Amino acid sequence: MSLSIAASTQALSAETVFDLLLRVRQKSPRVHAITNAVAQTFTANALLALGAVPSMTISREEVAGFAASTDALLVNLGTLDDARRQAIPVAIEAAKKAGKPVSIDPVFVDRSPLRCAFAQELMAFKPDLVRLNEPELEALFPERTKAEAAIANGAVLTVTGVEDKIESKGEDYRLRNGHPLMARVSATGCAGGAVVAAFASVEPDTALAAACGLSVFNIAGEMAAAQAGGPGSLVPELLDALYSMTSRDIETRLKTA
Amino acid sequence: MSLSIAASTQALSAETVFDLLLRVRQKSPRVHAITNAVAQTFTANALLALGAVPSMTISREEVAGFAASTDALLVNLGTLDDARRQAIPVAIEAAKKAGKPVSIDPVFVDRSPLRCAFAQELMAFKPDLVRLNEPELEALFPERTKAEAAIANGAVLTVTGVEDKIESKGEDYRLRNGHPLMARVSATGCAGGAVVAAFASVEPDTALAAACGLSVFNIAGEMAAAQAGGPGSLVPELLDALYSMTSRDIETRLKTA
Amino acid sequence: MSLSIAASTQALSAETVFDLLLRVRQKSPRVHAITNAVAQTFTANALLALGAVPSMTISREEVAGFAASTDALLVNLGTLDDARRQAIPVAIEAAKKAGKPVSIDPVFVDRSPLRCAFAQELMAFKPDLVRLNEPELEALFPERTKAEAAIANGAVLTVTGVEDKIESKGEDYRLRNGHPLMARVSATGCAGGAVVAAFASVEPDTALAAACGLSVFNIAGEMAAAQAGGPGSLVPELLDALYSMTSRDIETRLKTA
Repeated sequence: MSLSIAASTQALSAETVFDLLLRVRQKSPRVHAITNAVAQTFTANALLALGAVPSMTISREEVAGFAASTDALLVNLGTLDDARRQAIPVAIEAAKKAGKPVSIDPVFVDRSPLRCAFAQELMAFKPDLVRLNEPELEALFPERTKAEAAIANGAVLTVTGVEDKIESKGEDYRLRNGHPLMARVSATGCAGGAVVAAFASVEPDTALAAACGLSVFNIAGEMAAAQAGGPGSLVPELLDALYSMTSRDIETRLKTA
Repeated sequence: MSLSIAASTQALSAETVFDLLLRVRQKSPRVHAITNAVAQTFTANALLALGAVPSMTISREEVAGFAASTDALLVNLGTLDDARRQAIPVAIEAAKKAGKPVSIDPVFVDRSPLRCAFAQELMAFKPDLVRLNEPELEALFPERTKAEAAIANGAVLTVTGVEDKIESKGEDYRLRNGHPLMARVSATGCAGGAVVAAFASVEPDTALAAACGLSVFNIAGEMAAAQAGGPGSLVPELLDALYSMTSRDIETRLKTA
Repeated sequence: MSLSIAASTQALSAETVFDLLLRVRQKSPRVHAITNAVAQTFTANALLALGAVPSMTISREEVAGFAASTDALLVNLGTLDDARRQAIPVAIEAAKKAGKPVSIDPVFVDRSPLRCAFAQELMAFKPDLVRLNEPELEALFPERTKAEAAIANGAVLTVTGVEDKIESKGEDYRLRNGHPLMARVSATGCAGGAVVAAFASVEPDTALAAACGLSVFNIAGEMAAAQAGGPGSLVPELLDALYSMTSRDIETRLKTA
């Protein structure tokens, strides 16, 4: 599905990306992540390496409190069980009420009709960010007009692939960072979504935040792949890179259309 | 408990092991793993490093869909909670109906009578593979005749220990790869079981698939132990070894009786 | 909140710390940990690296059996969901009945009133160890007298911070090991709590066990930070250090008030 609503595709400068990274490091935003069981540890560690403060409870009873006092909410639909299904709407409502950015990552909606229907219901909450790959995009929005309606409603869509596309009613971005080895590690996409959520907590232009956050994460992946002997050593290297990334790293590696 | 039903114990050639590894890498089989909370990340990463595609939901509502569209199903009974207990029979039934190989790993049945009874009920589904250590074997099959009946019913039993024994109604195998440091890392057995499940999806001779998959995993452990400074660095090294293993690595290290 | 009930603060010798570490390695104690989803893998791996044997089920039905046959029970309140909430009192009761030391780690009680109330109820079980940071201490014991009453009741409080304080009705300890990079990895505190629980299973003087266990964990963190390129590589390095720590490592690094 090709989407192109914005008037123009915006280039991204290394300076802007680094400026937002510094703002994340300085603010130490709280990010509450309701994420899948496979991704929880890597996601928490990615947020900490970045300088953010993760919380991760999925308890229906507690989640509203955490979501209301967070700076950003990430909802990832992997390993969607009863507990998560009950907690998610409560958390989104609380975060929205508190004016915090809400990101949704509808993992594997192309493989589970039930999960897809649930994700479609969540769109009624008007999430600020939705991150998906092409098959998930086709499943979530079977008609192109529905995706366009979501964007018109204010959602920023990040469609990941060889080229990552960020679509919004304002600017669009085309990003080309990342490394194939990242796909050989579980939950890199999920952890990347949490990094983007952290960026959205320091920058009200959500499309710009998504473009910068995703670039930082994917550059960390490239830096890691340059050091790693395989997907196992990629994980610690990627976290180290997120932690130590300099403006020079971004200048050298940033690839936007 | 000593089991010896097969007429003969078969040697394993490095060539055969590598051939199956290549077939896994080429097919990129989907493996759905209902596994314990401690093992989920390592298991997903082992499958990805190997070249397989993991999915891991434990939701009763979703699991039939995932199990029906997978190439192999792994059921590990660690951290067996309500959600897992409800999902497991549904998943096994769906995988069996779709003709996909089903592996069961009855972790700690020697420490929980309830879990043991549950595992015994699962035997009625005629799983293709059961992986256990000696205490778990004694608990699951208190009488030797019950283990023999399971094998006669078509199950391939992998009994892990200093020497790993693969028992089937066809050939048996005796395997001696692996490294003591692997026991100092949580979920190595669980991740190894997932690797075996992936092998069973490319090779209908389940005992052969188990022998090859277990050998590959344990050789990866040996390669990792040769590099690692301890159990912490063993994990990334093992995943890197799974990813990069060559025919030469297998030739050099394979140890069968 | 400043607490000072004990008559004196005790210094800790490297010899004593190493002696307890050897006793843990020799006994290979079973530690059952009901811990949060983010911490499970790291906690299990820390226990294994140390030489202990972890089990981690949170199932209400099974947990009593595991807790009764363990050598120490750790209860960590992170990601407190229904399953955990139901399992925790059952597990504590079983461990107490079997005379095994019980540790409670009331994570984030300062951010969730419901969780705080639950933690306060758990104090009625007279846990042997409670580990918390200053904000959690203030939340759990809003009045100083309640903390003092818990200590008088036999609880050993470990209050973590730049300086870690161990408060008991016997000796107190002040500990200064650790490294800032440890705070950039999720669940280091949780894994450290599990290490302390293992120490409590080999030494009836719980305050001494806590002081030694925490010192070992924090020294492992320092050793790791000296090698690591960031928080990602800190994790494998820390586990390797726990596994290989010598008396010389402790002598060189131990810092007590």
